[in-house]
Amino acid sequence: MHEKCGVVGISLQDRDAARPLYYSLYALQHRGQESAGIVTHDGFQQHSHVETGLVGDVFDEGDLDQLNGANGIGHVRYPTSGGLGACCAQPFSVSFKSGSLGLSHNGNLVNADEVRDELASLGHAFTSQGDTEVIAHDLARNLLEEDLVRAVKRTMGRIHGSYSLTIMHDDTVLGVRDPQGNRPLVIGELEDGYVLASESAAIDTLDGELIRDVEPGELVVLHPDGTGYDTYQLVDNESTAHCFFEHVYFARPDSNIDGTLVYDARRELGRRLYEESGIETDVVMPVPDSGRAFASGYAEAAQDAGGDVDFAEGLMKNRYVGRTFIMPTQDERERAVRLKLNPIKNTVEGKRVTLIDDSIVRGTTSTQLVELMRDAGAEEVHVRIGAPPIVAPCYMGIDMATREELIASDMSIEEIRETISADSLSYLSVDAVAETLGQQRDDLCLGCVTGEYPYDIEGEATDRDIERPVIESSTADD
Amino acid sequence: MHEKCGVVGISLQDRDAARPLYYSLYALQHRGQESAGIVTHDGFQQHSHVETGLVGDVFDEGDLDQLNGANGIGHVRYPTSGGLGACCAQPFSVSFKSGSLGLSHNGNLVNADEVRDELASLGHAFTSQGDTEVIAHDLARNLLEEDLVRAVKRTMGRIHGSYSLTIMHDDTVLGVRDPQGNRPLVIGELEDGYVLASESAAIDTLDGELIRDVEPGELVVLHPDGTGYDTYQLVDNESTAHCFFEHVYFARPDSNIDGTLVYDARRELGRRLYEESGIETDVVMPVPDSGRAFASGYAEAAQDAGGDVDFAEGLMKNRYVGRTFIMPTQDERERAVRLKLNPIKNTVEGKRVTLIDDSIVRGTTSTQLVELMRDAGAEEVHVRIGAPPIVAPCYMGIDMATREELIASDMSIEEIRETISADSLSYLSVDAVAETLGQQRDDLCLGCVTGEYPYDIEGEATDRDIERPVIESSTADD
Amino acid sequence: MHEKCGVVGISLQDRDAARPLYYSLYALQHRGQESAGIVTHDGFQQHSHVETGLVGDVFDEGDLDQLNGANGIGHVRYPTSGGLGACCAQPFSVSFKSGSLGLSHNGNLVNADEVRDELASLGHAFTSQGDTEVIAHDLARNLLEEDLVRAVKRTMGRIHGSYSLTIMHDDTVLGVRDPQGNRPLVIGELEDGYVLASESAAIDTLDGELIRDVEPGELVVLHPDGTGYDTYQLVDNESTAHCFFEHVYFARPDSNIDGTLVYDARRELGRRLYEESGIETDVVMPVPDSGRAFASGYAEAAQDAGGDVDFAEGLMKNRYVGRTFIMPTQDERERAVRLKLNPIKNTVEGKRVTLIDDSIVRGTTSTQLVELMRDAGAEEVHVRIGAPPIVAPCYMGIDMATREELIASDMSIEEIRETISADSLSYLSVDAVAETLGQQRDDLCLGCVTGEYPYDIEGEATDRDIERPVIESSTADD
Amino acid sequence: MHEKCGVVGISLQDRDAARPLYYSLYALQHRGQESAGIVTHDGFQQHSHVETGLVGDVFDEGDLDQLNGANGIGHVRYPTSGGLGACCAQPFSVSFKSGSLGLSHNGNLVNADEVRDELASLGHAFTSQGDTEVIAHDLARNLLEEDLVRAVKRTMGRIHGSYSLTIMHDDTVLGVRDPQGNRPLVIGELEDGYVLASESAAIDTLDGELIRDVEPGELVVLHPDGTGYDTYQLVDNESTAHCFFEHVYFARPDSNIDGTLVYDARRELGRRLYEESGIETDVVMPVPDSGRAFASGYAEAAQDAGGDVDFAEGLMKNRYVGRTFIMPTQDERERAVRLKLNPIKNTVEGKRVTLIDDSIVRGTTSTQLVELMRDAGAEEVHVRIGAPPIVAPCYMGIDMATREELIASDMSIEEIRETISADSLSYLSVDAVAETLGQQRDDLCLGCVTGEYPYDIEGEATDRDIERPVIESSTADD
Repeated sequence: MHEKCGVVGISLQDRDAARPLYYSLYALQHRGQESAGIVTHDGFQQHSHVETGLVGDVFDEGDLDQLNGANGIGHVRYPTSGGLGACCAQPFSVSFKSGSLGLSHNGNLVNADEVRDELASLGHAFTSQGDTEVIAHDLARNLLEEDLVRAVKRTMGRIHGSYSLTIMHDDTVLGVRDPQGNRPLVIGELEDGYVLASESAAIDTLDGELIRDVEPGELVVLHPDGTGYDTYQLVDNESTAHCFFEHVYFARPDSNIDGTLVYDARRELGRRLYEESGIETDVVMPVPDSGRAFASGYAEAAQDAGGDVDFAEGLMKNRYVGRTFIMPTQDERERAVRLKLNPIKNTVEGKRVTLIDDSIVRGTTSTQLVELMRDAGAEEVHVRIGAPPIVAPCYMGIDMATREELIASDMSIEEIRETISADSLSYLSVDAVAETLGQQRDDLCLGCVTGEYPYDIEGEATDRDIERPVIESSTADD
Repeated sequence: MHEKCGVVGISLQDRDAARPLYYSLYALQHRGQESAGIVTHDGFQQHSHVETGLVGDVFDEGDLDQLNGANGIGHVRYPTSGGLGACCAQPFSVSFKSGSLGLSHNGNLVNADEVRDELASLGHAFTSQGDTEVIAHDLARNLLEEDLVRAVKRTMGRIHGSYSLTIMHDDTVLGVRDPQGNRPLVIGELEDGYVLASESAAIDTLDGELIRDVEPGELVVLHPDGTGYDTYQLVDNESTAHCFFEHVYFARPDSNIDGTLVYDARRELGRRLYEESGIETDVVMPVPDSGRAFASGYAEAAQDAGGDVDFAEGLMKNRYVGRTFIMPTQDERERAVRLKLNPIKNTVEGKRVTLIDDSIVRGTTSTQLVELMRDAGAEEVHVRIGAPPIVAPCYMGIDMATREELIASDMSIEEIRETISADSLSYLSVDAVAETLGQQRDDLCLGCVTGEYPYDIEGEATDRDIERPVIESSTADD
Repeated sequence: MHEKCGVVGISLQDRDAARPLYYSLYALQHRGQESAGIVTHDGFQQHSHVETGLVGDVFDEGDLDQLNGANGIGHVRYPTSGGLGACCAQPFSVSFKSGSLGLSHNGNLVNADEVRDELASLGHAFTSQGDTEVIAHDLARNLLEEDLVRAVKRTMGRIHGSYSLTIMHDDTVLGVRDPQGNRPLVIGELEDGYVLASESAAIDTLDGELIRDVEPGELVVLHPDGTGYDTYQLVDNESTAHCFFEHVYFARPDSNIDGTLVYDARRELGRRLYEESGIETDVVMPVPDSGRAFASGYAEAAQDAGGDVDFAEGLMKNRYVGRTFIMPTQDERERAVRLKLNPIKNTVEGKRVTLIDDSIVRGTTSTQLVELMRDAGAEEVHVRIGAPPIVAPCYMGIDMATREELIASDMSIEEIRETISADSLSYLSVDAVAETLGQQRDDLCLGCVTGEYPYDIEGEATDRDIERPVIESSTADD
Repeated sequence: MHEKCGVVGISLQDRDAARPLYYSLYALQHRGQESAGIVTHDGFQQHSHVETGLVGDVFDEGDLDQLNGANGIGHVRYPTSGGLGACCAQPFSVSFKSGSLGLSHNGNLVNADEVRDELASLGHAFTSQGDTEVIAHDLARNLLEEDLVRAVKRTMGRIHGSYSLTIMHDDTVLGVRDPQGNRPLVIGELEDGYVLASESAAIDTLDGELIRDVEPGELVVLHPDGTGYDTYQLVDNESTAHCFFEHVYFARPDSNIDGTLVYDARRELGRRLYEESGIETDVVMPVPDSGRAFASGYAEAAQDAGGDVDFAEGLMKNRYVGRTFIMPTQDERERAVRLKLNPIKNTVEGKRVTLIDDSIVRGTTSTQLVELMRDAGAEEVHVRIGAPPIVAPCYMGIDMATREELIASDMSIEEIRETISADSLSYLSVDAVAETLGQQRDDLCLGCVTGEYPYDIEGEATDRDIERPVIESSTADD
């Protein structure tokens, strides 16, 4: 499973934005490792540096020095629609009649082909298969006839799907979040400017203060002089469709998303998991690193309930197993998992173990982990998952797996338990997720765990209709 | 001085076009060393591989294997308008309403900004500053309303300047040459297909036969099944503007351009040079490799005239001095030229030497060469140049130098002779060039040696008006 | 602080050793990231592949395929004596009169120069400044006159310092540990062979069973047919000098060293830390990842003691900040630490915090962490360190810092507390370390925390004399 | 065919030697493209930078800046004995009892294994299979007991074969040439120092003056302060064994070797070729670049003899076909040659052609060239070779081919003519070579064209015995 992208936008008073953008992208690197890019504008012209690779490999000091200008946007990407390679790396830049546009996009449009075809009928030619180019062309076309705010509003009326965007129109940085607020976007204040980012951790990295989440359907326009920002509630929505998986899986534990600290949410989900399906064992053990916060909450709840349970790291993660790793041959396959995760024998031997993770996708890793535990001498191995079973794919910007690959798409929990050979297996309930996140079920996108989506997706069920709204605006100048 | 680009297009009967395109680009590598690219179409979709670097570095076997399809185009590039870097490498690909386009361009438009602005007014957004994207968008737009031939004709009616293009419209390969025929383009026949290329040497490399030059203003449409081609004389022009410098400098000696073998042209220019300004010396010596054919013709004419003159290589060229060379410090500067060209002492010592080259651009190298000759013991050093003095920049697709850098732009020949410290210096006359190439002066682009251009260029004189013509067509099926 | 090296040696029955060596080196990557290498022997000749870089970058499938032979050794390195660069990467290979040698070395000789000079007097010429070449030459020389076991014994009699070696003499793999057992070395059994490695985690990775630690002064000779091994107690020592820092800092938590599981040792050290200097706060927090096991033990002890203390992750580590990171400017310096470690606000705000780490070297990071905690709203920040203060450099193979850089070398604990602005600061006592590791103080190398070394080092105090012993042997064939 | 190596050594008065060494290696790049290296000594220590790759890729400015010291040696290498890869790149450096040695070697020892075994018996361990390490160890050993000159003399008494060496002993640069003078070595004077090099072109590049060839068996010791040099005739030989192929093939035309300018020698060989086997044709044409000087001499002789023959370039060489070239498939094989050499049709069509080259090795290229000529319309194709047939391999440092691959090793000239389908074929006689080079046959190494070698090579005939001589010395201080 991969998050598809991270976006950032920065306007400063008297400093070049390139270095803060660079550090922000480092903070968002977990959201995309395929390519990275920064586009800045110095008041006269745009500067761009986009390449495939990790942030640290894409930019050197010279690159940053050439990215002049106090305003800019950035992007990290894991490839999704639009195919592979440098062609689809972002930010995407275009120049048009009256200026230049740069776009960073996190999310996935469901009607991109439709909008693309309309634009093509008007003569537009496209260099990529990506959603982002479609948004850019539509916006550029609207800007021929309308001012910036109205142009964005018109584009929002035409595109349908999930999107958190940071946009540069000449030297003005904008942030837009789709009307359902599916992908996260926050705004923060720096000592000498403002920042928009996928996660608040990027703001922390710049020593800034999180102001608040950008609202679903809201446009934020940073003042190019770094002194303030305007906001426009361009689309009003009755219900939202926040991605609950950001909290469970993708976002950094130290980020705040839609009002909740991710680390706290995970600990609380862990507590709820114990409440719903706690079992008495000798030791509670996270699958590192993803299960750690869940396990910590789970163990705490167990101990609070008077259980004599040990919270212990029983699996050592090898952080060097990376991209260039030579895969073991068939014979060595079993050993492969021990390269990545090695059991700490004393913690496991002769013990009843509860293994805590955030999800089961294909089931392969869980099977191997249970076997590892038994080989290391575990008497019982119980598996607890801090989220509901994933039964359907994500169409909103996460690279999960095909429906066929998802073990829970056609197996009952008991069948999965048997497959992974655990002594017991429990998932968290959907309701517990909604309650923990302080949301109505209707305000979350639960497509991957219910199979019902808050967007019209061909061949999939819809959980409701989507409304399109009225314009409003407020100003937060200083 | 650099040629800007080389283009190629191939349609075959039953073979993938990728490898022949690759070998063609090798044959055209001297026309552009900055980037290389191939775009093919397999009947269903386009495949593209474009990167910065030499042909041999850009493609490996795997890359060629993935470029499926019996039709394709290719490009080698030296960067000109449109700036640097991977963004402007070609072929340029776009998809639009009813298909895909790929373009390879050699030349330079003089009204690109104007056409770009018109398209921008219609909502077009551009990802680069290049001419090629402008042509692509204009053509894509025309294709919304017209068939391929009429669409190309309409685009040719709008763009003004020099262009030899190979174009892929879905799996159809086209070749177009501008109405003045400024840049070269030829068509050839292979055992199992047809090829369009900047120079006939690319056809030789594929063991094909040169059919003829593509005519100024002509469109050639290769049949996607490799069995034939159609031609359309889309624009009829009263006069042409062939670049004479292709013959003098850029093209390979083994290429045929506009009916003349380049090697023969250079030898004949050398003979004319002797006739116009021959001088009796002990030895005639080329500046390698550019002056070799001129010197050979010159020496022959001298010997035919009964002169007792030796034709000898007196300068040894080091072929390894390349891109990554560490420049000598100021103190070592003088020695630098000897790294690249070292005099063969015995050939020079105590001799009166005639040094033959094809041009003098800034004068720096000539100065160093004359000094080298004297250091090696030459008694006299006479310089003869196989072309007229370059007095003005090129706007048609050659990266010459700015007017300020051109030594002949504000110095008389006598002043240049003094600057380079030669005992005598002569250039070839413009008339000799025209006669040798078998053309009227009016049918050549002589802008760089006369300052009068066959195109309307802001701030420069024009040698005449340009006509726009009537449509015609012929078919060469088999 | 860096461990200097990891070594491995493998003999198999019917499989090539290259891939198991590769996976072992992955398991030992934390012991050296500068270079990696494998040398194998196929019965006829040696094969070698050694390069600078991480294991995953150094080897591709083709490299492994060419490393034929069922016997081989491997090495990962962080550069120490012998300087930088590819010249000193290991294993070091030499051929000599009657065969070939390959050596992998972890440790540091204290009399290398002396032995080198003696060999030089005999005509030996050296290609590097490294200890390893000295050992190789000495061994090669001894092998002219003696059998393998006696030759190794004679070399052990001449070299002085810390060394765990894996050696290939033709196709025989040996393991040797210095008489004080300073650096770790273990032997394990695979389904079809035997393995020697710096840490038992490498054996786990191959699905093997740890047999035991190689004893100080012991030579282990693997049978080239993978069916067994012989051992020879070549040097008998009265006391050992195990490096306690392997347990505290370097080794993987899942490794067993000298009879102790590192994870357990760290948890126990954490418990002892609470017992010695526990303080009541709201939350106990590890500095990730190094302080995690200590903090877990500390928190457990606190809870066992009835404390109402929360064990929580309060610092989020960014795993992408790596080698190619562009350092912040002076102004941005403060922000730099937040790129690497970002506080999770809710866990910290309004709380009294105990921060647990394994060491303080220069004090810079601790100062920044305390400040981070306060910025995040911590009411009190107490720092507890799971080891004694480092007051002196390491000469035995760890790249610690110069004495000048070590904050504890000339500051009292109170002065350090003030410098890092903590509310309180405590270290663990040396005795607690010895007791936890189940060793006499005399059997540990405590040089870096006492300034008294178990080896004669010029300008440093010695904690005792070192004895040189008698030969013995045992056989563990099957 | 490949030359194996180029060597250089420089001592300057007040400048670092690194940059002059770098430019010298550029001038010698044609002698080895596999690796390049420089070793300097600054009076205190040695600095070394050796890598695989071309000179321009191996060194950047930073590398040169770190190579401190006014004395240094350099090397370019094509791999021969000692195998492939970075391990065998040179200069080879070792440190030993009383200092450091650096060696650059051009040539091939015939008794390296024997000397290596002797040294191994004394305990020497070797890191490579190369000759150079053997020479280095032997010299280091001798230096334990004797002064530099006597040590070199003793080593020269033990090693047998071809060698031109530049050596650094601490900061003293030496040049040594084997007693038969097989490989070239010259000494030259710079404004502020002295230089030893394989070819005089390297001296020209530094704006220096060629003093003379180093004599066979002579040792030249440059003064480390750059003010002069001493010479010692360490071995006196009655006859020499200069490699005639340096003149015919390897050396640069602008180099002086053993008193002869290579370009002049080649022109004269061309004249002799016409005298011995001239034939009347319409055009004389070189195979570029190797046949150019021969063809020029041949054509001149033909014209002097009153022939109406045209000297013309009829083959265009593509200079971009290099290392990374993707080889054509079997089907495309024929086309491959036209990528590298394309006939200029007008020069060939309907003409009787004489094609001049310097050698025929396997015959493949010649066959293709004759066919190319006929395809281009040549009426007759006559081939003339400026050297005798190569009938046997080279053991002295040139990578020619195996005996089986050499077409002339078991075919008569008539059979070769038939194979390559030429109308006639002639080689130059051995006597003409000797006369042209102004040498007795006995003073040339003609092994490859006679099968009789001036060295004892197992399984090959010897042309005479080799003498070992008396010591002498002279001084050329200033």
